[in-house]
Amino acid sequence: MSRVFNFSAGPSTLPVEVLEQARQEMLDWQGSGMSVMEMSHRGKHFMAIAEAMKNDLIELLAIPANYQVLFLQGGASAQFALIPQNILNGKTKAAYVNTGAWSTSAIKEAGKYCEVQLSASAETSGFTTVPTLNTWQIDSDAAYLHYTSNETIHGVEFSEIPDVADIPLVCDMSSNILSRQFDVSRFGLIYAGAQKNMGPSGVTVVIVRDDLLGLTQDTVPSVFNYQLQAKSDSMLNTPATYNWYLLGLVLQWSKRQGGLAAIEQTNIRKAQKLYQAIDASVLYRNPVDPEYRSRMNVPFVLADAGLDKEFLRLADAAGLSSLPGHRSVGGMRASIYNAMSEAGVDALIDFMAEFERTH
Amino acid sequence: MSRVFNFSAGPSTLPVEVLEQARQEMLDWQGSGMSVMEMSHRGKHFMAIAEAMKNDLIELLAIPANYQVLFLQGGASAQFALIPQNILNGKTKAAYVNTGAWSTSAIKEAGKYCEVQLSASAETSGFTTVPTLNTWQIDSDAAYLHYTSNETIHGVEFSEIPDVADIPLVCDMSSNILSRQFDVSRFGLIYAGAQKNMGPSGVTVVIVRDDLLGLTQDTVPSVFNYQLQAKSDSMLNTPATYNWYLLGLVLQWSKRQGGLAAIEQTNIRKAQKLYQAIDASVLYRNPVDPEYRSRMNVPFVLADAGLDKEFLRLADAAGLSSLPGHRSVGGMRASIYNAMSEAGVDALIDFMAEFERTH
Repeated sequence: MSRVFNFSAGPSTLPVEVLEQARQEMLDWQGSGMSVMEMSHRGKHFMAIAEAMKNDLIELLAIPANYQVLFLQGGASAQFALIPQNILNGKTKAAYVNTGAWSTSAIKEAGKYCEVQLSASAETSGFTTVPTLNTWQIDSDAAYLHYTSNETIHGVEFSEIPDVADIPLVCDMSSNILSRQFDVSRFGLIYAGAQKNMGPSGVTVVIVRDDLLGLTQDTVPSVFNYQLQAKSDSMLNTPATYNWYLLGLVLQWSKRQGGLAAIEQTNIRKAQKLYQAIDASVLYRNPVDPEYRSRMNVPFVLADAGLDKEFLRLADAAGLSSLPGHRSVGGMRASIYNAMSEAGVDALIDFMAEFERTH
Repeated sequence: MSRVFNFSAGPSTLPVEVLEQARQEMLDWQGSGMSVMEMSHRGKHFMAIAEAMKNDLIELLAIPANYQVLFLQGGASAQFALIPQNILNGKTKAAYVNTGAWSTSAIKEAGKYCEVQLSASAETSGFTTVPTLNTWQIDSDAAYLHYTSNETIHGVEFSEIPDVADIPLVCDMSSNILSRQFDVSRFGLIYAGAQKNMGPSGVTVVIVRDDLLGLTQDTVPSVFNYQLQAKSDSMLNTPATYNWYLLGLVLQWSKRQGGLAAIEQTNIRKAQKLYQAIDASVLYRNPVDPEYRSRMNVPFVLADAGLDKEFLRLADAAGLSSLPGHRSVGGMRASIYNAMSEAGVDALIDFMAEFERTH
């Protein structure tokens, strides 16, 4: 068996130790005589797994006591619709910042439930930057302000949490949660699909401040009512149990790395060396404003797009997998989430240099 | 490692061959150099897995060409809310039959979106039977008629598909799909959580007739709009990829058993011998009308409830796991889904006889 370096944007590479433990426990979890995926979610074994997983997330993110942590199904895309229906709180307007494809999708979906105020947009830049905070327009009657902390497709990441005073700040952190330290108390609501830094797809984390609970519209399915799920420890119905277990294994691995402080330093190093290699080359180019370049997703184009296919073919042959850019932007994209080792980034840089030398 | 016989009602026991294959492929799926859970859902590997899985389900259930098969997140409980919002078709009323705890939940949730006509109810019997079809009241302006083909908690199963003429028939088959042969063309919509006969929790199958597509209300999140998901092969957003893969492995196993005809015969044999053992005993009792006894979930009580704890303690020690009845009905429950071997049922029957002899 030979593992590749997998640069997929998500679902994405996972720590090999996590996969090895899952393999080891597949037929018999710690002497229980069954796989985790065969366990009743109400039984003592799975309850222990679930509790440890939740506590590890609370510890890693230092989530304050006045927040509830939910583990739901449907992906971040379901939350695009569920957030306004859960927290509009009788208001008719919500503010959104558009920094790329995922913000755009969130805005489109929210428009089904409320009037969207476009507070700021980087669209005219081709989504290569983040609009300066002092240009944002935020109406005082907006229920919340939504932004996407990292745009997976465009490779744009907020370098700081925007200060929007008293309005509840809502953030889609799908593609950079657990990658850096941040202050949860700055947010009203944080949500993230697991399939980048937290585990396999099929579970969505929602971290919501207590004062935003109990505001859900009647039309929301009960299993997507934040308050009902908070009261039930996200077990109002059968959760995606095996996904929770794998998420838990990734959280344990994240703690073993030294937590977010250590993980962030590694991520800075990985991203810096890859961007430096791109900037120093003649063949490769990343179009994003250096201040807002993503540490997680590094898109780049070749000066001669006619070389794209050959680049991808040779990369694949060299064990560097899943490098095509998103179909909407083309070129290449290297997603270098927490589980992508520094050795993988080094291998990519070496390959890119060799490809440039020979083409 | 010693595997137990796991009688959990769901998530529930899976075929050991499925778990062994998942273990074998955990770090490297068929030479791809990655786990299935690390694959991009848009990549060729996962697309092949998804297509084979869907085709195997179509083959096993003989699903006609005028049906779409969706693989969604949220569980059957989410569908309780999503079905009326997707197929009410401008009508204000839907008909429901109440045969137990799960029907009751479906009715309660549907009531948020439409007027529920209670066509028939077995509540006064303590949910131990199915109301005779000729007593059902169905208004001609009801958008559909909903029933639950197998009640997991009460152990009540429809022996035949009710004939309701032209009204679209909607069925929650979560706990008996794949357990017996049936004619899909009798239904407008079938839905089922995977975690009984199809795999782990986290994926919900929806089989919907083409004429019920395109009727979705605007308030439904896009990822739960049947038509949008049908057009996207259930990949409008990132699906629960590993859950799909495991579902696919269970479907392959189901085919290897000889398909539904062979599986049904085994299930009949397993259920008959367990009910016979209960009926022949003095200590054990199943309260359900013999015509509607479930082949999947066999609840039973002890003549002396004071023996319950000792029964469960000794059963557990004998490797017979997860036998407590649902907290709402008490007693015991043996769930004997497809993956519960005949040897497991025999072991339970032997244990019950020995326990009766010694107590």
